[in-house]
Amino acid sequence: MNKRIGLFGFGVVGQGYYQIAKKHKEQWTPDTIVVKNKFKRRAFDLKFSYNPQEVFDKNPDYILELISDTNEAYEYVTEALKRGITVISANKKLLSAHLPELIQLQRVFGGKLLYEAAAAAGIPVITTLETHFEEDEIISLEGILNGSSNYILSRIFNNGLNFSEALRLAQQKGFAESDPKFDINGSDVASKLNILGLHAFGKFIGEEQIPTFGIQHLGEEEIALAKRLGLKIKLIAKAERDYRGIAAHILPTLVEEHNPFYGVENEYNAVKIVSEHLQEQFYQGKGAGSLPTGAAVYGDLIKAKNGFGYSYSKVNFDKPLDEKLLNLGVRVLIKSKAAALIDSVLFSPELTHQIDGVIFAVGKIKPKNFNKLNESGEVSILALPDNYAVESIEAGLKTIQNAGEVV
Amino acid sequence: MNKRIGLFGFGVVGQGYYQIAKKHKEQWTPDTIVVKNKFKRRAFDLKFSYNPQEVFDKNPDYILELISDTNEAYEYVTEALKRGITVISANKKLLSAHLPELIQLQRVFGGKLLYEAAAAAGIPVITTLETHFEEDEIISLEGILNGSSNYILSRIFNNGLNFSEALRLAQQKGFAESDPKFDINGSDVASKLNILGLHAFGKFIGEEQIPTFGIQHLGEEEIALAKRLGLKIKLIAKAERDYRGIAAHILPTLVEEHNPFYGVENEYNAVKIVSEHLQEQFYQGKGAGSLPTGAAVYGDLIKAKNGFGYSYSKVNFDKPLDEKLLNLGVRVLIKSKAAALIDSVLFSPELTHQIDGVIFAVGKIKPKNFNKLNESGEVSILALPDNYAVESIEAGLKTIQNAGEVV
Repeated sequence: MNKRIGLFGFGVVGQGYYQIAKKHKEQWTPDTIVVKNKFKRRAFDLKFSYNPQEVFDKNPDYILELISDTNEAYEYVTEALKRGITVISANKKLLSAHLPELIQLQRVFGGKLLYEAAAAAGIPVITTLETHFEEDEIISLEGILNGSSNYILSRIFNNGLNFSEALRLAQQKGFAESDPKFDINGSDVASKLNILGLHAFGKFIGEEQIPTFGIQHLGEEEIALAKRLGLKIKLIAKAERDYRGIAAHILPTLVEEHNPFYGVENEYNAVKIVSEHLQEQFYQGKGAGSLPTGAAVYGDLIKAKNGFGYSYSKVNFDKPLDEKLLNLGVRVLIKSKAAALIDSVLFSPELTHQIDGVIFAVGKIKPKNFNKLNESGEVSILALPDNYAVESIEAGLKTIQNAGEVV
Repeated sequence: MNKRIGLFGFGVVGQGYYQIAKKHKEQWTPDTIVVKNKFKRRAFDLKFSYNPQEVFDKNPDYILELISDTNEAYEYVTEALKRGITVISANKKLLSAHLPELIQLQRVFGGKLLYEAAAAAGIPVITTLETHFEEDEIISLEGILNGSSNYILSRIFNNGLNFSEALRLAQQKGFAESDPKFDINGSDVASKLNILGLHAFGKFIGEEQIPTFGIQHLGEEEIALAKRLGLKIKLIAKAERDYRGIAAHILPTLVEEHNPFYGVENEYNAVKIVSEHLQEQFYQGKGAGSLPTGAAVYGDLIKAKNGFGYSYSKVNFDKPLDEKLLNLGVRVLIKSKAAALIDSVLFSPELTHQIDGVIFAVGKIKPKNFNKLNESGEVSILALPDNYAVESIEAGLKTIQNAGEVV
């Protein structure tokens, strides 16, 4: 029994899905593919449609939404769900912005929405949260969720490139957009953490609520320091629960060798989940790429065919989904020339070390201050490993000072 | 709507499941618990039954089979499946021995059988193979699948214990059985690889077909050599497909620092899957323990309630499930005093180095010879990392020779 499939978008992900679907005996290729640009040259010789309505006119069983425009995606996905159609989406921005409404539409109209490809593409983390962890209480979820940032950090740490050389290479390799802002400032990561947070904790955080600091302010001194200490820097997204509620933030983080994130290189993503019963789990896989992402979309289609849907079992629908985030202090190394700025945000100080007018300090920062520090453009922050000795940081700073590694 | 649940066995796994089930609002605790020994003191004050028939007399919706006796387990599970009842099992020996028949019983009578806890307990690898990888072609599956062996290796490499000290500690901690044979000789691993192989490749290998060499013959020299080379030794199970068929074996393996298995310590298990589309994925989690294993059983129950079952989509039911394994040469370092024994199995030799009558050689061995070497008791074998330079091995051997690290 052939199913009618409507596809919106034929970019990197859409083509990956299509390549996979056409190899299989069962016909899970789309009968309608809607694209926007009539004049773009395309890799496949297919009949394209330019009219979104054509998808709906054919009464599809499944709709795949694989476009980048969030507003258009919102239109197609809500329209489909209102018709009770099962939708597969890879659109993190759409989902992160509208999940509560999209969940509601599934409940009212009976359609399903699956979106494994939207967060940590190749890693089946949403499905796993919805099955294996369904009745387990999640204590924390951490991840490396942006392949471009991670690729840049790998080139810096493994090949000795500086930040701008590494960024240029990431762009050449197609891992970073030509405007790489969303890749390196953590905005893309916030969308993904927001989606995963809902499945892990049953709460909708809202990505604009997640204090986010990307890798764009990372300087040569912190990189030299990390190398001297045998550490790496990774952009880590973290959400955790304590008895008062949920805390979340995104920060460049110093990572020790025994941490499983230490070995996650290049365009790979990884997720670490700590729960009450299953305890610590760690997953690593490709976070980008046409085939891994297309395979996640195709996998969703097959799961939907087999009757699988997200149960949102951690969501308590009698209570509001959103919750104010806790603003718990994070222990960091902060670097700036602006002493007053550091003073205005740092508490529980443990160390201040000055090299040629550049101040390095260890202490705690409330995540709500990340935005202010981000906008100042004068500050670099690195989260420290748990219980990392401040004496090691101090010794490391003296070493780079003596070696003349401070610019 | 309460469901009737019959439980066989109340050991480590059964108690873990029970602890989890009684915390949840929905009643997923058993109404009948059948145990064998009337006189054993038990941690929970519950009414136990000693008559297996009592479970069936109550017409249960679900049966949990969490006992160790394979023959009894076979009786209960086949009886349940013939009645179309959904069964959750954690019994790797049962499953590894009888999976083809148990799959057939599901198909004929409509009951389901789930068994995530039977292989790499805490890691949802079977569910992931059955969902995320359902339509993807697996190229290879490798794993650290025995927590006791891995715990022993961690103590040797991280704490400087020798083999027998490490084994004693594992027994004290409850990670190894009082008769540790099945833990350290790889037999337990073969059962798990056999189960995973079926879900990964759709073929039933048969655990007695899997050439297996455990860690029991590991000597001080190989450990000293690995440490000198900055490598670790892990007991790795591997199954892979090439155009001619499937190859599989279990061997202590030298692991380089960049390999994700390098950081898997203590009682953790890990699985690496390489597939055509999703490419490389790596999962790590607890491989033993009452709560992680109990949570995997409980998770299966919840999945079954939500309609989930294994589709065995990679199995072609028109063809016989079993397939002769390929006997492809594996590149190893072999150590023995018996020159003739080495000569009789090693081909494509690259290096022979003798220290005080002990011969170290690098070359290839056909897995079918593992048994003979195992039984001789005079040989230690270590698989080498892919493309590892023989010159490094030679230099390492000279270093341990000069340092007097050869006993």
